[in-house]
Amino acid sequence: MSVFQEMTDGSVTTPRGWQASGVVAGLKRSGAPDLALLMSDRPAAVAAAFTANAFAAAPVQLDREVVAAGRPVRAVVVNSGNANACTGDRGLVDAREMAQFAAGLLKVAPDEVLVSSTGRIGVPMPMAKIRHGIELAAAALSPAGGLRAAEAIMTTDTTRKSLAVTLTVDGQAVRIGGMTKGAGMIAPKLRPAGPPQATMLAYLTTDAAVAPAFLQQCLNRALDASFNRITVDGDTSTNDTFLALANGAAGNRPLDAAHPDAAAFQAAFSHVAGRLAREMVLDGEGVTRFVELVVTGARDDEQARRCAEAIANSLLVKTAWFGGDPNWGRILCAAGYSGVEINTAKVSLDYGTVPVVRGGMDAGTPEAEQVQAIKLREFTVALGLGVGSGSFTVWTCDLSYEYVKINADYHT
Amino acid sequence: MSVFQEMTDGSVTTPRGWQASGVVAGLKRSGAPDLALLMSDRPAAVAAAFTANAFAAAPVQLDREVVAAGRPVRAVVVNSGNANACTGDRGLVDAREMAQFAAGLLKVAPDEVLVSSTGRIGVPMPMAKIRHGIELAAAALSPAGGLRAAEAIMTTDTTRKSLAVTLTVDGQAVRIGGMTKGAGMIAPKLRPAGPPQATMLAYLTTDAAVAPAFLQQCLNRALDASFNRITVDGDTSTNDTFLALANGAAGNRPLDAAHPDAAAFQAAFSHVAGRLAREMVLDGEGVTRFVELVVTGARDDEQARRCAEAIANSLLVKTAWFGGDPNWGRILCAAGYSGVEINTAKVSLDYGTVPVVRGGMDAGTPEAEQVQAIKLREFTVALGLGVGSGSFTVWTCDLSYEYVKINADYHT
Repeated sequence: MSVFQEMTDGSVTTPRGWQASGVVAGLKRSGAPDLALLMSDRPAAVAAAFTANAFAAAPVQLDREVVAAGRPVRAVVVNSGNANACTGDRGLVDAREMAQFAAGLLKVAPDEVLVSSTGRIGVPMPMAKIRHGIELAAAALSPAGGLRAAEAIMTTDTTRKSLAVTLTVDGQAVRIGGMTKGAGMIAPKLRPAGPPQATMLAYLTTDAAVAPAFLQQCLNRALDASFNRITVDGDTSTNDTFLALANGAAGNRPLDAAHPDAAAFQAAFSHVAGRLAREMVLDGEGVTRFVELVVTGARDDEQARRCAEAIANSLLVKTAWFGGDPNWGRILCAAGYSGVEINTAKVSLDYGTVPVVRGGMDAGTPEAEQVQAIKLREFTVALGLGVGSGSFTVWTCDLSYEYVKINADYHT
Repeated sequence: MSVFQEMTDGSVTTPRGWQASGVVAGLKRSGAPDLALLMSDRPAAVAAAFTANAFAAAPVQLDREVVAAGRPVRAVVVNSGNANACTGDRGLVDAREMAQFAAGLLKVAPDEVLVSSTGRIGVPMPMAKIRHGIELAAAALSPAGGLRAAEAIMTTDTTRKSLAVTLTVDGQAVRIGGMTKGAGMIAPKLRPAGPPQATMLAYLTTDAAVAPAFLQQCLNRALDASFNRITVDGDTSTNDTFLALANGAAGNRPLDAAHPDAAAFQAAFSHVAGRLAREMVLDGEGVTRFVELVVTGARDDEQARRCAEAIANSLLVKTAWFGGDPNWGRILCAAGYSGVEINTAKVSLDYGTVPVVRGGMDAGTPEAEQVQAIKLREFTVALGLGVGSGSFTVWTCDLSYEYVKINADYHT
């Protein structure tokens, strides 16, 4: 029994009191939409997570300040086509101007506006285009604009990623909407805009009233079962941003950890984040197979995570998956160099329901059966380390010619 | 002024008192040589380094015992075509039998024989073929067999990697020979033997008399400037092995740290190891560009190493190199997620002699000049982190379609 329901054509503007837009500012040479605006009709509590990259982009630095201040916000400006990263002081000035310029048009305070950017690193922001785009976006704001915003934040993605769910809080309906971009391949029509950057951006909106601390808790708890469990290529961007915004338009008694519907809200929140994260991998650059990799029996969850990430990022494992090669030695080899504790005599490996390794050795399953289990669009790989009870799940993918093509094609 | 000289057609049998052979045991379906034997006419001091992989292969486990015993050895048996890894107790029994069988034919003690294997993981050793191969190899031993041995240890390599140098110790000539395999692509003719395993095997022989502790010191010091500074794909094998063997046939006073020619010997030893390591990357799977990546200005050498390895293993960096794309943002991004301390406002980057980043931002060099600097078969990338005086150099390569093809092509 689920405590929430998915809604048709759901988006960040499915929750009440939210408007959005997506417009062509002219940053992408393809002429595709490249600037999105998201606005609440009232102050919204905010929770956030940002990249751990030392070269955190200017908009990330700005957003960190805004979020740290702990005050509600009103709007988010997002551009694709330029990351505004490694752009020095000028980058920070530009990010601030994006917030200020939007604030002026929207009649809110500059510190009520968050900013995100994604695109090529190291190129100064074309501020004339940005200002023009923000003007267009402000004029286009609409309660029906959620899907257009989801399109405008795309870079290498091939499809927009958007959904919404509804659940009951205090006996009345509240909604959570979400959109994300990233880990997607450059579609040929977008390539002239520059080489891909697999930055991950994700936005959750809700019309529930949520205490800021509880909103942050929901976000933190959702991370390990969503964005922090995915890897396409192991490259952590300078711009990764995950924002959750709650404006309270539904009129419920503010949710906190003690609220009777807290668990239901957390479940719905995690579902939206998880679905968006999963879609990101499915739309990953050149991806032909989606792999759920489950590591169990580790000393602790952190060791399970480290082991799972080593396997998920192994070129030999990813290329074998692409080729439909059950070569399990590559998986054990990657586990073996991940540096975690392993009881090699007790290691087990399964492809779907097919036993592949038992006691650290070939389980004797005919190779044809192993091939059948992994020559699928989606399959599960389960590795037991035989040490303790730590576990972690990663969602990852194969590595195809197409990935190399997308990322090696030099923009001319 | 160099203290040593390279010799024409040098090999592991260039030093006096060494014989070798390379024969067809029948492990490779291609019919290429797949078993090598290396033998000294007298006991040889041994130094070694092995993989840190938790699934260390059976021959690695056996060799560790032999080396730990600290006694001289007489011979090394090496097979390609099967890794004898993840093969349980039977694998260890098989590795011991390889040593014993060779010892019987060579009239030496079983614990004077080292064993190496490389090939597919998880497949039991075909011992009848192995025994037959050892018989052939023992009969074929010759002071001229070094190059044939270098051929027989190849798997995905496209060329044999062998050399020798001579230097003066105690006023007389001594020789150091070496051979290595690994990180090489499967040449199409070898593919029927099974998917590639990029195990690295390296053997250095010398006719110098060397105290075991000093030999191990030479090996340890050579590592960071040779095999431990290379990465093709970041996958650390279950079978990596580096053996150095000194038989004293040259008759010098045994080298130790206090010997007046100790530094010269160390330099020659490091040169041989470094050359072999470099050749391994140049012959790496699908490699079209060789990159010397120098990280300086790190908090310490270990941070510099971690940063360099993150960059060298970044898919986005490697594919950009393949495409001849100077996209420096990917390099800074990888440094940024490596977890090391960085003064982002002081970061510098150079491609060869071309300044690319200064003060963490675009140095203003026209992109065409940057492209010229990296559209080469070999180039240097130098990253300064602006923190301290730690440094590390990695030799790495690009990631091409061919790498994916080699490693995705499922053996049928």
